[in-house]
Amino acid sequence: MRLALAQMNSTVGDLDGNRARIVARMQEAKEAGAEIVLFPELAVTGYPPEDLLLRPGFVKEAEHSLEQIAHSARDIVAFVGAPQFDRDLHNVLAVCGDGEVKAIYRKRFLPNYGVFDEHRYFAPGRDLFLLEFGDTLIGPTVCEDIWQPGPPATDLSLAGAQLIANISASPFHVGKEREREQMLATRARDNVCYIAFVNAVGGQDELVFDGHSVVLDDEGQVIARAPGFEEALLIVDVDPVEAVGRRLRDVRRRTFESEREPAPEVPVVHIGASRATGGEPVELTIAPMLDDLEQMRLALELGLRDYVGKNGFGEVVVGVSGGIDSALTATLAAETLGTERVHCVSMPSRYSSAETRADARKLAENLGSPFRELAIEPIVESFDLVLRDVFSGEEPDLTEENIQARIRGTLLMALSNKFGWLVVATGNKSELSVGYATLYGDMAGGFALLKDVYKTDVFRLARHLNERAGRELIPVTTIERAPSAELRPDQRDEDSLPPYAELDRVLEEYVELDRSREELAEDGFDSELVERALSMIDRAEYKRRQAPPGVKLRPRAFGRDRRVPITNRWHG
Amino acid sequence: MRLALAQMNSTVGDLDGNRARIVARMQEAKEAGAEIVLFPELAVTGYPPEDLLLRPGFVKEAEHSLEQIAHSARDIVAFVGAPQFDRDLHNVLAVCGDGEVKAIYRKRFLPNYGVFDEHRYFAPGRDLFLLEFGDTLIGPTVCEDIWQPGPPATDLSLAGAQLIANISASPFHVGKEREREQMLATRARDNVCYIAFVNAVGGQDELVFDGHSVVLDDEGQVIARAPGFEEALLIVDVDPVEAVGRRLRDVRRRTFESEREPAPEVPVVHIGASRATGGEPVELTIAPMLDDLEQMRLALELGLRDYVGKNGFGEVVVGVSGGIDSALTATLAAETLGTERVHCVSMPSRYSSAETRADARKLAENLGSPFRELAIEPIVESFDLVLRDVFSGEEPDLTEENIQARIRGTLLMALSNKFGWLVVATGNKSELSVGYATLYGDMAGGFALLKDVYKTDVFRLARHLNERAGRELIPVTTIERAPSAELRPDQRDEDSLPPYAELDRVLEEYVELDRSREELAEDGFDSELVERALSMIDRAEYKRRQAPPGVKLRPRAFGRDRRVPITNRWHG
Repeated sequence: MRLALAQMNSTVGDLDGNRARIVARMQEAKEAGAEIVLFPELAVTGYPPEDLLLRPGFVKEAEHSLEQIAHSARDIVAFVGAPQFDRDLHNVLAVCGDGEVKAIYRKRFLPNYGVFDEHRYFAPGRDLFLLEFGDTLIGPTVCEDIWQPGPPATDLSLAGAQLIANISASPFHVGKEREREQMLATRARDNVCYIAFVNAVGGQDELVFDGHSVVLDDEGQVIARAPGFEEALLIVDVDPVEAVGRRLRDVRRRTFESEREPAPEVPVVHIGASRATGGEPVELTIAPMLDDLEQMRLALELGLRDYVGKNGFGEVVVGVSGGIDSALTATLAAETLGTERVHCVSMPSRYSSAETRADARKLAENLGSPFRELAIEPIVESFDLVLRDVFSGEEPDLTEENIQARIRGTLLMALSNKFGWLVVATGNKSELSVGYATLYGDMAGGFALLKDVYKTDVFRLARHLNERAGRELIPVTTIERAPSAELRPDQRDEDSLPPYAELDRVLEEYVELDRSREELAEDGFDSELVERALSMIDRAEYKRRQAPPGVKLRPRAFGRDRRVPITNRWHG
Repeated sequence: MRLALAQMNSTVGDLDGNRARIVARMQEAKEAGAEIVLFPELAVTGYPPEDLLLRPGFVKEAEHSLEQIAHSARDIVAFVGAPQFDRDLHNVLAVCGDGEVKAIYRKRFLPNYGVFDEHRYFAPGRDLFLLEFGDTLIGPTVCEDIWQPGPPATDLSLAGAQLIANISASPFHVGKEREREQMLATRARDNVCYIAFVNAVGGQDELVFDGHSVVLDDEGQVIARAPGFEEALLIVDVDPVEAVGRRLRDVRRRTFESEREPAPEVPVVHIGASRATGGEPVELTIAPMLDDLEQMRLALELGLRDYVGKNGFGEVVVGVSGGIDSALTATLAAETLGTERVHCVSMPSRYSSAETRADARKLAENLGSPFRELAIEPIVESFDLVLRDVFSGEEPDLTEENIQARIRGTLLMALSNKFGWLVVATGNKSELSVGYATLYGDMAGGFALLKDVYKTDVFRLARHLNERAGRELIPVTTIERAPSAELRPDQRDEDSLPPYAELDRVLEEYVELDRSREELAEDGFDSELVERALSMIDRAEYKRRQAPPGVKLRPRAFGRDRRVPITNRWHG
């Protein structure tokens, strides 16, 4: 049996565009001799459509779009993810063939943790069934269903499924791609069945879907894998009926069955006969898994490219300071959008050193990107003038530093307004965690590319980009200079913050793992450092609430993934 | 039987403070002769604690706090809302008496719509029981449980409950207080039992809990009601055993029972004996329900007061333009915080008229609030200078307007940084809906008081505040002048926007009711107006994502209540 996994990049809300893409992929799959083609979860609407699902008009149009897709499904069977309203709203896998919807499987397990809100929208499905295609029995599932160790996978395989098909929109974080594949291998072995897992790919606001669609045999071996972070049509020949032989030898399942409730009756829906293709078998493609730096780079680039493209921007602007965050941001943007679409603007003040000014310029030269310098001194002076009376007798403090940052934010937004460029903010996760960033200043922008990248990873990525390019894109002096905001004389980040290597470890424990002061102390973290860091993190929640979206890269990102009250007196 | 309903203002995360408040109220209730005292849902932690509930250390401390509260519960029984981890996390009503927790009821229905995310945190309870106090059988429930027409209320009353106790944290929107009480009256009548409903009160980020705790008899008559928007200890004598007589005459329940599954066995837990109080019956208090303007005023004031107070601010600053939004914002702030704590800052430009400048000053005089004028012209000129080359050959457009707004935002933030004042942003819901607001400009601030107030209601509230005061607080000229942003010569809001009276009707239909272009056309809305408004609303999502929090006043507010993707090609 020949399968096609259409690892597709839908756009949320673009029903016409998504449908055209699905139909085109269906045609390609047919031309490649595939008998069944799988599309990702909610491929019809894009994932996640969020509160668009509360609009009856949207749901109706999505259903209409699915019907049109089904109408195009001839000489091939397509598994298509879509919303469907039938007494209540469900997240479904629609089996399309012979020009119609032949069966509807409703997702049973609806994730409602992390970035997911599926209980807000969907009613859970209750029914299971098998799809009979030729002599193969296929068990349909949607995303979260396969993350469950028990049913539906166990019920489907006990009822005879030789292949479990899973259509997903599984968002990325570093390491998720491996964790997911390990889980799928375990499911395949536990249930002695093949698994065909198709994932969405692309950026949607804060999320990136990484693809890495995969087919595993009943021994948990990967027999085909699509690459990460790009669209692909993975074609693979499988013979899941083979699994039957191995099942006769595998006693675990029967034991398992005898000790639990009898498996439910699972009806069988006939969906087509396998053609004897007779032709040459397709060559198996197993795209390699990449290391964490490459995964991060590709996720950031895809997230930015799709935010820019899907929102209709042509060009972007980055405030380059000569520091490493803005250098990394501009370099990633130049790689993914093209150098000429990335405008680099340096906005030096009296505190900017000759070295950082030179580095800002050099960065743009290295990238080949348009560069401008706008010295902010006249504006700083005009603020001083206007505020002179009201501030008389007060010492300079953070106020004056923030004014500089906000002047820069205002200049970037002015360029954005005048020329239609998207402002890409340059702050990293370490700064945003502890609030070492100016609201409406360096935090200003439509997209905060490095929002979920720790400062220690900013350094690693900067070196990695230079190595990959085989030349200096980000000036080495930028990488090697001690980080400074340059908002007052001789400022260094480490005057205000713990060293980043130490800080980032605490952030990971507290922000991503919810560990308490007590637990961190028990694990030997310096209690003064912990106290200082955690207080800063808690106090900065109001800033993060007003931050632009950015690419989620870590198990827990700021944004929808971490919902902490601003008004919060908890100190733990 | 004498009940006390402790309508309490908890602070999220402040376990010590909340406990102290609970114990103090318990004492007051005891002194008033109450035998049972009810506290709101999650009174121990404040509501909603959001992702604090994912921290094991927080849950453990909250459980510890509940134990201490139980230890103080002597000679009175307290129903206290708290989280409890027992194999999984539950949202519970803990029955505290004789110095210990005597019973735990777990909330069964967990809301996961609108502003609620309870499936993210809690496992649903499964068990029901009755509490026997003297000769009264009480059915315990938590918030959403009572919004269900069937069980648990029906099961509890069929099992013999004469009083259903409900502890809630039910957030406000205009009209909710009446809708809620109607529902409670229906529950009381359907089940022929008394209902004691205690609600939280206070502001928490975007939510306001309005109180309006109430006791109804088994005929659905309100016999006591606490006022809205303030703490209260409502004392009431009830004799729910009376209901037994009426039940013998009410055949509906038996009919109902015979036609459905038999009611489950409901165990009974003995929690104490009623004291013969013998004293004078308490006088019944039925606080009046207020009209929608008063409800809005009180909700806005409570929301602001608690955001300021619970976050540790002393004073606030408002940019006053001579326009009505900033005038209303400053007036509400002055009423609730005290006039001397509200700093009014006028920041005129070359486009500010003599009239609006005078009105800004007059407003501050009327309020008796500190006033400053900072003319922004020198700063505007310095921006022009710095941007002269890069903008050469370009026509003035929105860019120059936004620069002025951002200069003002930066000045307000400078005052905030220097003096610790909270910036209260002044934009209204109509502007924020269509994006007629400058990100980092007039949208800048820690709290956006009028975020959920339509412009037409801004006018109504302004007039209302003057009438209430019996004098001109908001200058009449401010109320009567046609709205203008004064960012270019002779600008009027209606040059860029449909008339507010028409716009607000469309906003309500689209933003709050999810109605489509088609449906609005069918209802006779002008299709050009609808098209224009809806496109503006959709395009402005990226701005709203970076807006400060503000008080939810309407059935659907921006923020957690309306989760729409930024990247969104849906056009319906």
